[in-house]
Amino acid sequence: MPKISKKGLEMPSSPIRKLVPYADVAKQKGIHVYHLNIGQPDIETPEGAINAVKQADLKVVAYSHSAGILSYRKKLAQYYNSVGINITENEIIVTNGGSEAILFAFNSCLDPDDEVIIPEPFYANYNGFAQSCGVKVKPIYSTIETGFALPPIEEFEKIITPKTKAIMICNPNNPTGYLYSKEELIALSKIIEKYDIFLFADEVYREFCYDGAEHFSVMQLSNIEQNVVLLDSVSKRYSACGVRVGAFITRNKELYATAMKFAQARLSPPTYGQILAEAAVDTPKVYFDRVIKDYLARRNTVVKAINAMPGCFCPTPKGAFYVAARLPIDDSDLFCQWLLEDFNHNGKTVMLAPATGFYSSKGEGKDEVRISYCLNVEDLVEAMKCLAEALKVYPGRKL
Amino acid sequence: MPKISKKGLEMPSSPIRKLVPYADVAKQKGIHVYHLNIGQPDIETPEGAINAVKQADLKVVAYSHSAGILSYRKKLAQYYNSVGINITENEIIVTNGGSEAILFAFNSCLDPDDEVIIPEPFYANYNGFAQSCGVKVKPIYSTIETGFALPPIEEFEKIITPKTKAIMICNPNNPTGYLYSKEELIALSKIIEKYDIFLFADEVYREFCYDGAEHFSVMQLSNIEQNVVLLDSVSKRYSACGVRVGAFITRNKELYATAMKFAQARLSPPTYGQILAEAAVDTPKVYFDRVIKDYLARRNTVVKAINAMPGCFCPTPKGAFYVAARLPIDDSDLFCQWLLEDFNHNGKTVMLAPATGFYSSKGEGKDEVRISYCLNVEDLVEAMKCLAEALKVYPGRKL
Repeated sequence: MPKISKKGLEMPSSPIRKLVPYADVAKQKGIHVYHLNIGQPDIETPEGAINAVKQADLKVVAYSHSAGILSYRKKLAQYYNSVGINITENEIIVTNGGSEAILFAFNSCLDPDDEVIIPEPFYANYNGFAQSCGVKVKPIYSTIETGFALPPIEEFEKIITPKTKAIMICNPNNPTGYLYSKEELIALSKIIEKYDIFLFADEVYREFCYDGAEHFSVMQLSNIEQNVVLLDSVSKRYSACGVRVGAFITRNKELYATAMKFAQARLSPPTYGQILAEAAVDTPKVYFDRVIKDYLARRNTVVKAINAMPGCFCPTPKGAFYVAARLPIDDSDLFCQWLLEDFNHNGKTVMLAPATGFYSSKGEGKDEVRISYCLNVEDLVEAMKCLAEALKVYPGRKL
Repeated sequence: MPKISKKGLEMPSSPIRKLVPYADVAKQKGIHVYHLNIGQPDIETPEGAINAVKQADLKVVAYSHSAGILSYRKKLAQYYNSVGINITENEIIVTNGGSEAILFAFNSCLDPDDEVIIPEPFYANYNGFAQSCGVKVKPIYSTIETGFALPPIEEFEKIITPKTKAIMICNPNNPTGYLYSKEELIALSKIIEKYDIFLFADEVYREFCYDGAEHFSVMQLSNIEQNVVLLDSVSKRYSACGVRVGAFITRNKELYATAMKFAQARLSPPTYGQILAEAAVDTPKVYFDRVIKDYLARRNTVVKAINAMPGCFCPTPKGAFYVAARLPIDDSDLFCQWLLEDFNHNGKTVMLAPATGFYSSKGEGKDEVRISYCLNVEDLVEAMKCLAEALKVYPGRKL
């Protein structure tokens, strides 16, 4: 048998993936599973955007420009301008989802064994992209007590080495829902400036901010214009994850030219997805008003329910559609498996994401789970009832 | 200014890309440019496939399974069975174009500094993917005198080292159009078996075989079932490059599971592209009969015209839609630039791909060009007239 690469063997697999077979078995047994584990919104994609694809009159579905269709990039620049981000179509590379934007950033800015600092918990797939590029993730601990606020700047300085080439954030955050404030980002920018390293910001949840909070983008940090890379996607914004359309955005011309070489090697992003995304820019504000109202009601439902459960704690995040909660459990991987394998409440159970997958430090996240509120309020109420009942009887409950 | 990665700085850029600004200037001067440089077919995408996208009734454009939509994978397995390739839906990972299939193969089978042997000239972007994965390409020279047949097996053995993890071929070949025979592939399989390394085969031009030749797939080599990875794409088959739908295919379960980890990190391939590709499997045979008849007439036009030009030689390849020709020129990069910058014949000129970009060995390909016949016969006749006139007056002509 030929040998698999070490890189491939060590490629991390998300703990959620390991739960999928257990969920399948539960469903086969007739148990209803509330999926609180996923990042796929249930919200409908804007109709106008879907219609643009239906009405596209293509004879040959040809490659687009490697940086993306020009008319789409222009439209996308308009969108960014409308949310206070001043960029042009020539600073955008359209990517195969936000995923590819991360790959382009890692490949263009970091060599194998270089380091990127990321506050943890963080989106599990960052680990996968780092592994695939040979890049080392240096986690920096953020704590549930502060709602996962940016760790003190001194903590970053402590772990910066000559190999540190970038700091990466997700704002609003997956998995915590935390929205970084303007002040936090300015503080972060000082250290970026001091060490002249890159700042990668995954802002795919930009639209989803609550309680009157406003999103402040890293592209608005005027002191580090050449250092910033915005990683974006239309997946969450328009509930269109399947179109695979993201963006790599930078004002740094040398970096842009470098990332373009990776973009040219893979020829082009998907044409239909770009057609949908271009039309989606015209989505009326009323769509977002409704979506944000829905998400807010859901967040409140989940946060309130969890905080009412004995021994549980859930901060109230101001963004995205996730919460990270602390539960009185021995091991979140075991608990989430147990929920699917050995538990049901009136024929129902919940599938959660163990927080262990969002930490790069071993042993962290064992008493935390991520809950995605991509379900309607009625289902969330039922799901929370299941969780409450489950915690009463879970054998690994901590007293 | 923050520092770009070494990997990014050294990422190769195709010589064709460097010509694009010259083509733009020529067009601005009103010169008609025949694009013989591209791999984008002018053939129409099958109407039934396009209609499937128009008729898709999606409310939420959701992520698909990371391995691709199950119904598409089943349909795709049927297609492979119909061309004599016996595989199931569980041996297929649908990818973001053939490009991503190459990345998955490199990442899953090779670690940084491992080596892959590729007969040259080869598809230029293999270099880019190798660079992005830290993999070393070891070229093995194939010569225009044999029409770019597989080099003798002894030549492969000479350069195999403990770092050699794979041999990669493209069949039918881009850029040469060469179709490997069953006998050549069996010979190749012996060395794969002997050293127990992987064989990657890019077979995206499978449908396009001429002169009664039949395509023999590496998946039909029964002695190396665990070693073979088929890299495929619907781009050329259905003239649908913009859908970005390819496939990574292997019967090796450990390799499949490894590649799936890379697939899961990037979530899913594009939904609309998969809808088109699934419907495309039902494309009637008459579509291919017509396309192959068209390509054959074009190939004959080009080969005959070039061989009639003094000092030129063009083999008659049996596959794909490219020919590689030897011209009496000093430097193909300079010649191709000159064609755009300083030449026109009755207000027309041609854009060719310098073969230098298809060689990994420095200095090779200087008197060769790749000609893609993605134009109709009338245009090709005119384009060949331009080329003939150009060669008469090119200052760097070799006597």
